[in-house]
Amino acid sequence: VVVSDDLIFRLRGAEQRLLPRLATLVENDDPSGLEALRVLYPLTGRAHVVGVTGRPGAGKSTLVAAMMECIRASDRRVAVIAVDPSSTLTGGAVLGDRIRMMERHADDGVFVRSMASRGRQGGLAWATAGLVHLLDAAGYPLVVVETVGTGQDGTDIASLADTVVVVEAPDLGDSVQTVKSGLLEIGDIVIVNKADQPGADEALRLLRAAFDLVQSREPQILSAVATAGVGVPTLLAAIDAHFEWLTATGQLVARRERAARSEVLAGLRAAIDRRLEDGSDRSPELARLISQVAGREMSPGEAVETLTGLLTSSLNS
Amino acid sequence: VVVSDDLIFRLRGAEQRLLPRLATLVENDDPSGLEALRVLYPLTGRAHVVGVTGRPGAGKSTLVAAMMECIRASDRRVAVIAVDPSSTLTGGAVLGDRIRMMERHADDGVFVRSMASRGRQGGLAWATAGLVHLLDAAGYPLVVVETVGTGQDGTDIASLADTVVVVEAPDLGDSVQTVKSGLLEIGDIVIVNKADQPGADEALRLLRAAFDLVQSREPQILSAVATAGVGVPTLLAAIDAHFEWLTATGQLVARRERAARSEVLAGLRAAIDRRLEDGSDRSPELARLISQVAGREMSPGEAVETLTGLLTSSLNS
Repeated sequence: VVVSDDLIFRLRGAEQRLLPRLATLVENDDPSGLEALRVLYPLTGRAHVVGVTGRPGAGKSTLVAAMMECIRASDRRVAVIAVDPSSTLTGGAVLGDRIRMMERHADDGVFVRSMASRGRQGGLAWATAGLVHLLDAAGYPLVVVETVGTGQDGTDIASLADTVVVVEAPDLGDSVQTVKSGLLEIGDIVIVNKADQPGADEALRLLRAAFDLVQSREPQILSAVATAGVGVPTLLAAIDAHFEWLTATGQLVARRERAARSEVLAGLRAAIDRRLEDGSDRSPELARLISQVAGREMSPGEAVETLTGLLTSSLNS
Repeated sequence: VVVSDDLIFRLRGAEQRLLPRLATLVENDDPSGLEALRVLYPLTGRAHVVGVTGRPGAGKSTLVAAMMECIRASDRRVAVIAVDPSSTLTGGAVLGDRIRMMERHADDGVFVRSMASRGRQGGLAWATAGLVHLLDAAGYPLVVVETVGTGQDGTDIASLADTVVVVEAPDLGDSVQTVKSGLLEIGDIVIVNKADQPGADEALRLLRAAFDLVQSREPQILSAVATAGVGVPTLLAAIDAHFEWLTATGQLVARRERAARSEVLAGLRAAIDRRLEDGSDRSPELARLISQVAGREMSPGEAVETLTGLLTSSLNS
């Protein structure tokens, strides 16, 4: 891929295979992917970025697939990034089917990318953010990021979104787990999927009560049966309404500041991780401290204190 | 807790409640916990540290409980650190029962600590390493660390161990998943638990074939029925034999170097994470870059490059 000033025209224009190729470069943190993002970044910030998160088995992939179908039915373009769909037993397969279906129809109003989390722990949020910018620049007005949403990566990925949808399901047993997991705190919209199953009403009641406690804004608690498409248009309307609310209240600017902060910190963490792994063989200071720790001459805590002292003095000067 | 030079005598001597209190301080990364480890660290390196890892549902907690029972039957002392036992549905409860049982018998030859992973993502391996040193210094000749063993934390925790036991079970479906997960590469001993269930022979065959490919050393593939204690004495003998092999071949020194490296890097990551979270509000340089990224004046990649340049120049000088 040749990165030049006309990249944006080639991306939005005739070069059909450019987007998937750039996406691969960005995903792999390739230098030309970074260079492409440098060129494209000023053109971003137009897409509405929607995060869809929730516990494994809640039916996130099925819901996202139903959302895509509904969005395409109204002829809007949409891009989906599925982060680690293999984390659920069936999720990956469901989305895989959907991708194949879309590809068969050669539907260029849809772009789907699934990202595996294995072996890229630290850099997952960073790579996801890069893909979001790429799809934003490519002109997709709506970018959906599906993620399990736990751990540091999950939190980082959720904070990239303008609107976060938390998916819950009655058959996961205790909805109290969702309340306790901290997912509600990050959710702008909570949707109880599989609402035709026993326990759905109870889950809705519990979530309404809990949501009232943690959110200052009017709670948005919805229900859906994703497999039948039930509740999906209402969800999409709520997502649009949330974006209008963000824009009208000026909250969007604050969210984007938060997203930029989260992305830069995630990138910095990933870069530091990589340099530490290399650097511990190359940096004489680091090697010396590790050897002293192994020899029981210095405690691990003292070694870390020495190293962070070195590292952070450069940030705060 | 008063940390003084006689800490080791108080720890190994009469102060019954000192160890659990110190463990809490170490777990919370409290300054007096760090200070205690500084005093105690020169006395560590005697314990055999055994990691027990595997996919959720493999029966790790049940196996560890059976190991404890067997070790106590031969009157050896043992300490167990269960990292995130709540990640399996029943694991936490099984170990909880066991702890209560042990406590009823006031068995001071056993120390059990379970550590939740929630809300301490980055620092989990660091806190676990601290606990291992504490229990080592307290005189436990065997420290067992049970962990799910996936992700950066899992890998970091496994690399703290002298001997890594990977637990597999036939009813988890495809054993190919264990092969693919990378767990085999870190395992010194692989044990197929629930060996009385269908598919156990097939799992054993597959693992033997895969293990031959990834390990240079003679593979140790065992089987057990942890709920009935079957295979547990053989496992303990294999664990002891592995430690003897490590000592005889000089491999132990290399493992301890690797563990020290892993611990210092984990501690450094955790410390940097904390300082970044604070620092991004305090550090003018970081705040300025984030604001430029949010305003689309600078790409995230350029911001990260600038920051890592600042940070790592101090390490490599």
